Amino acid sequence: MDIEDTLLMIPGPVKVAPRVLRTMSRPMISHRSGEFGAIYSDCRALLKDFFETKNEIVVMTGSGTVGMDAAVAGIIGRDDTIVTISNGKFGERFTEIGERYGRVVPVKFDWGTPFDLDKVAAALEEGAKAVAMVHNETSVGLTNPAKEVGNLARKHDAIFIVDGISSIGGNEFQTDEWSIDIAITGSQKALAVPPGLAVVSTSPRAEERMLPKSASYYADLKAHLKSARKSPAQTPYTPAVPLFYALQEALHMAADEGFAARRARTARQAEAVRAAAKALEIELFPKVNEHTHYSNTVTAMKMPTGISDDKLRGGMKKQGVVVSGGQEQLKGKIFRIGTMGVCSTSDILQTIQTLELVLAKEDRLPQRGAGVEAASKALGI
Amino acid sequence: MDIEDTLLMIPGPVKVAPRVLRTMSRPMISHRSGEFGAIYSDCRALLKDFFETKNEIVVMTGSGTVGMDAAVAGIIGRDDTIVTISNGKFGERFTEIGERYGRVVPVKFDWGTPFDLDKVAAALEEGAKAVAMVHNETSVGLTNPAKEVGNLARKHDAIFIVDGISSIGGNEFQTDEWSIDIAITGSQKALAVPPGLAVVSTSPRAEERMLPKSASYYADLKAHLKSARKSPAQTPYTPAVPLFYALQEALHMAADEGFAARRARTARQAEAVRAAAKALEIELFPKVNEHTHYSNTVTAMKMPTGISDDKLRGGMKKQGVVVSGGQEQLKGKIFRIGTMGVCSTSDILQTIQTLELVLAKEDRLPQRGAGVEAASKALGI
Repeated sequence: MDIEDTLLMIPGPVKVAPRVLRTMSRPMISHRSGEFGAIYSDCRALLKDFFETKNEIVVMTGSGTVGMDAAVAGIIGRDDTIVTISNGKFGERFTEIGERYGRVVPVKFDWGTPFDLDKVAAALEEGAKAVAMVHNETSVGLTNPAKEVGNLARKHDAIFIVDGISSIGGNEFQTDEWSIDIAITGSQKALAVPPGLAVVSTSPRAEERMLPKSASYYADLKAHLKSARKSPAQTPYTPAVPLFYALQEALHMAADEGFAARRARTARQAEAVRAAAKALEIELFPKVNEHTHYSNTVTAMKMPTGISDDKLRGGMKKQGVVVSGGQEQLKGKIFRIGTMGVCSTSDILQTIQTLELVLAKEDRLPQRGAGVEAASKALGI
Repeated sequence: MDIEDTLLMIPGPVKVAPRVLRTMSRPMISHRSGEFGAIYSDCRALLKDFFETKNEIVVMTGSGTVGMDAAVAGIIGRDDTIVTISNGKFGERFTEIGERYGRVVPVKFDWGTPFDLDKVAAALEEGAKAVAMVHNETSVGLTNPAKEVGNLARKHDAIFIVDGISSIGGNEFQTDEWSIDIAITGSQKALAVPPGLAVVSTSPRAEERMLPKSASYYADLKAHLKSARKSPAQTPYTPAVPLFYALQEALHMAADEGFAARRARTARQAEAVRAAAKALEIELFPKVNEHTHYSNTVTAMKMPTGISDDKLRGGMKKQGVVVSGGQEQLKGKIFRIGTMGVCSTSDILQTIQTLELVLAKEDRLPQRGAGVEAASKALGI
């Protein structure tokens, strides 16, 4: 595989624009300098709009998981209870994190099925300091009802933590409107930056209720807030400088396009993938209802009967297009296409055309060109 | 300041070679792919030589601190005791980390003064699961007696944790010979990679005595070891892909030079800085004895009387050379020059010449050219 000539269509890391990649080749600077502080402050301001929030933003060096970890470790002490809602791999991660630091009441649903909000309400009735959920469950391709859970959290005076890692900037995500106290994203998703940074917003309400000391030394949200408020703005530990260069450049690219315009484009692109799937007689994986929607950042589809993961994804990779498989219990059963960040119309069409090619080889293509035609139509071409 | 035309002579992040910077501009790849696994495995193998160890190496996304955190959180439970030795800022960090997870017996010395090994022995007599120290104390410019403390640790059956962040690959550092169970470095030091990766080696002895679950979710050494042993090699959470590109490239550069040759060059360069300081009548900051040495990766010097930090470092920065000041209680009292990684002979001479220029302006230069001459001589020019 020639990585310089491969189209990456997985749900993260996503394709990064060449101008963003190039900016990482600038020399290093001191992370305690005014130059670094100016970059960080600029990012913090733009990220507020990206998150649709007035809350304060910090950027941590690490994967999105370090942000999830920081949220839980900062709020949940040994004797505190957190309700964790899951219907996929990343929701289960909140349960694992919660178990590391305090008491967990897991509210678990089958992967890819909608939440039963009554069960969430019942868990909160028992009393909890926080409730955590994943907005866009990358592992199964659906979005969960953050607004509705936010209302329940407020009613029960619980801190509301939302993993928006593969969501913010791609799907509709209203941090303040939905009463989200701590929201998290990762650089390698809709921001279209390489992986290695977690972005976290914290409400004054969450800050007031933080533990005197976080349960984690490195993933310490309080320490990050304190350093970010210094002048020049800093991080408590040495940050990944080139990724901050990339973050600033990518945020300006996104702001130039318009954050709302980017979300609308992402929605059109996911609609195109779903339309192509329908035309190619491929079933979407997740079950949806009035509160749960197909994700606009990742489309999860059932593996067509009689085609192996190796044939489908391996065949596409040979043609230079990389899509994702299923994780854990879904390995070999689904495949996933990411549509985030700077994904272009031609990226979508190339992907669908390559999928058709592989299906044709396996004698599973209903009609040549049907997928590309359906996608083009959805894209308005 | 034009960052593209500035010489960075701080003790991290250090200057990165253009070929290493450029490699970060390559497109993203999936972190679960064979392509990523091959890069990671190559790095893991080369890093064993870099660490002078047969122990297993993992690379975590985060600052060096995430490595220190992982070491302590993986070993020290609520009822375990760790002896932390400090004579500078980073030794004190081990105390802070230890306090987050268990019981700490701090053995504290004034910043920049040698350890009293008898005091360390006395603390270990009381019984401890681990002892942690910093080999090269970046904040004060000295190296501490890791070998001697290693002997004490073995005698008392304690796990020996060493922060080698600004040391490994620059100073002499023999992980196995010195009985170091967990050694840590950061990418932005002698490896000459941008910041954002921590590298950790773990002995079988340390692995056997790890807690069933680390006290930290993100900084989980056991999870990193487990993922690294998969085929293809992986990380438990999404890694900072461009920094792994850079790490691989920088390791090959260092291996081509020879790890021992690089350490010898670093030693010569530090000797040149110390010789220049002497010629310019600038006092070195740390106190040394038979076990404690001037660091070869960072030289800490007292601020010449009557010159402010702003005049000295600000004046040098105006001429395009950035050196570090003192941290915390040493702010304004010392300045520090880093000599690590791909620092060149001409970098050293430009730095000393710029220092002379600023001293001349303040009427504090004993003799024009004295510093450059002394440095040249030490460099064998």
